[in-house]
Amino acid sequence: MDNKCEKSEKNVNSAGRNKAAQNSNSSPSDGSCDFEQITIEPPVNVVEWCGPAGKGHLRLLDQTLLPNETAYVDCRDRHTVRSAIRKLVVRGAPAIGVAAGYGMVVAAQNIQEGDDFLSRLAAVAEYLESARPTAVNLSWAVRRVEQRAITEADGGANDGQIITAMLDEARAIHTEDVEMCMSIGRAAAPLVMEHSGLLTHCNAGALATSGIGTATAGMYVAHAAGHKFTVYCDETRPLLQGSRLTAWELQQADIDAVVITDNMTAHTMKEGRVGMVIVGADRIAANGDAANKIGTYGVAILANCHGIPFYVAAPYSTFDMSLKSGDAIPIEERGAEEITHGFGNRTAPEGIATYCPAFDVTPAELITGIITDRGIISPVTPANVKKVLG
Amino acid sequence: MDNKCEKSEKNVNSAGRNKAAQNSNSSPSDGSCDFEQITIEPPVNVVEWCGPAGKGHLRLLDQTLLPNETAYVDCRDRHTVRSAIRKLVVRGAPAIGVAAGYGMVVAAQNIQEGDDFLSRLAAVAEYLESARPTAVNLSWAVRRVEQRAITEADGGANDGQIITAMLDEARAIHTEDVEMCMSIGRAAAPLVMEHSGLLTHCNAGALATSGIGTATAGMYVAHAAGHKFTVYCDETRPLLQGSRLTAWELQQADIDAVVITDNMTAHTMKEGRVGMVIVGADRIAANGDAANKIGTYGVAILANCHGIPFYVAAPYSTFDMSLKSGDAIPIEERGAEEITHGFGNRTAPEGIATYCPAFDVTPAELITGIITDRGIISPVTPANVKKVLG
Repeated sequence: MDNKCEKSEKNVNSAGRNKAAQNSNSSPSDGSCDFEQITIEPPVNVVEWCGPAGKGHLRLLDQTLLPNETAYVDCRDRHTVRSAIRKLVVRGAPAIGVAAGYGMVVAAQNIQEGDDFLSRLAAVAEYLESARPTAVNLSWAVRRVEQRAITEADGGANDGQIITAMLDEARAIHTEDVEMCMSIGRAAAPLVMEHSGLLTHCNAGALATSGIGTATAGMYVAHAAGHKFTVYCDETRPLLQGSRLTAWELQQADIDAVVITDNMTAHTMKEGRVGMVIVGADRIAANGDAANKIGTYGVAILANCHGIPFYVAAPYSTFDMSLKSGDAIPIEERGAEEITHGFGNRTAPEGIATYCPAFDVTPAELITGIITDRGIISPVTPANVKKVLG
Repeated sequence: MDNKCEKSEKNVNSAGRNKAAQNSNSSPSDGSCDFEQITIEPPVNVVEWCGPAGKGHLRLLDQTLLPNETAYVDCRDRHTVRSAIRKLVVRGAPAIGVAAGYGMVVAAQNIQEGDDFLSRLAAVAEYLESARPTAVNLSWAVRRVEQRAITEADGGANDGQIITAMLDEARAIHTEDVEMCMSIGRAAAPLVMEHSGLLTHCNAGALATSGIGTATAGMYVAHAAGHKFTVYCDETRPLLQGSRLTAWELQQADIDAVVITDNMTAHTMKEGRVGMVIVGADRIAANGDAANKIGTYGVAILANCHGIPFYVAAPYSTFDMSLKSGDAIPIEERGAEEITHGFGNRTAPEGIATYCPAFDVTPAELITGIITDRGIISPVTPANVKKVLG
């Protein structure tokens, strides 16, 4: 099956790789960055639009089958879109937003002539939002595309013209996401290039965005610039996003990935294999405290104890400036089965108690810097957060 | 099936529990310890001898089936004994030693009349040792029982009398192991009783000994003394000894066990749930640096960062005084499959690289104390190690 719709290159842009490699060990004297010239295709197409407005469809990489199978789900109606979001076929806040934007177009295409287009669209928006009620990006993207339709209708456009405009809006969300990743990647790449060994936790990669990821963005840019390095991927129990997803996507891009179990991190650091840690974030408070997948806080402590710089990479939209500190971030607790029934088999005794926090909070003082699409916050202080985010 | 041969009580001795409970919050004024009076049955019979000398057999709990099935392997010939040791039906240095001692008796019973008893026995010893060539306790126990046979033969005993003496020797190894665990347990219990939450890593429990374990010994004694507490069990990837074994054996003894994944340790500590850490050790250097299951070093760092006392519990036989420091302890690397095929299913991409150290070394300065069967070494310095071990 040809799984490419609009893009012809799968891996990193080799022209970009060669170009930047010539300058990989020096910065231009005027202080500008070579990386500005690099554009990189994501190693995988997580979400894409296939075909023209009015007759196209949304194609999603089915992440539930990774790493054992690479298959795609074609969404031609609102039910398939909602189900894909709900079942984590597509995951990661940025990727969900992009998928939901296109999902609105898919649903709009199916509105029958004679129906009240905008009221049907409002119902679709609500239906899609209900797939994952707490996913802020989902709601945000759905409403943005709906708003565009309302604006076009107000301007006198017919249904076909509205759908074309909606697709433009969805593509804009997609493009902005790709750009967000590239901005983070360009900022992070010079840091990555100082090291031959990196470590990351969970998946804040291309698979969680429609671009080159957040935590991984600097890795892809540095790789395109010809830098050679190894990325240690914590497997990230209980759901193994590190071994199933991060290792897989880095492998697709020919980046040297090594899977370790979470409890091998300390020893791996002690041996000097890790020069730098980069992880993503789910939510960042105004003081820079960062909530991320369970285990991140431990990695931050271990990095600090071994004198290893610990960076968080996240778009500015991850900051919740209404939260003064990480203490205000609620920690979701998950069901016992994630721990006791890993991968189809029971791995703990019947009736045993578990404690399963899904996230933890890394305090700002353990974070060397936060790499955003608006620049790097370092040291991580409330004042610097405010300054960089504007 | 009645799986008890010589012991009638499965769980902790409730008389002992009641007795010590009365004094659990105070020490006698003469400085002696109440715990001296407590005797506790292990929560499980890992290894036991069934029947009389000459016609008995060795019964082993099949740990490869835990926690999903409690079954026993009856060993009536040297092949079954060797195979059980090789396949980890029985595991943990102390338990392997006890099993091997009885294994020699099983094999001796099968020596045909007319055969040269001692030369057959020497062949058996070599055969059993080859099950796990690096297991020091295996070889030590096999040779100790063989030596007893030689001594008896020199004294003029007949084959039947030799076998009876060999069984005595094997039982002595067993008794010493049980006593070693109790000694550690009595020393550790007062520390355990200061806390309502403990954490352990891997399995240095009853399942690894023929008694009440090493890291768990203080827990069983404190429990028998009526102390209420929760034990957080790191699941201990890749082989899950924490969730499969430690959680199971604590559950058998009605101790409150909670399974967490290894990367939940830091957050669990941050929340104040853990008052103390106790782990086992595979090898301890003369300066107190301790090698143990991978992940232990990370737990020690996290404990130190949260101001939580971190103890190692191990018999004096675990010390290798020929090693000046932990730097001299070689770290075994294991195969990729342990990481990539956890739980029966592939959990990492085809062809991915892994790094799989089986052990790590915790430096003495991170260890609050080492609880041995000869007393507690604290602070952990070369001089104190020497002093306590005599």
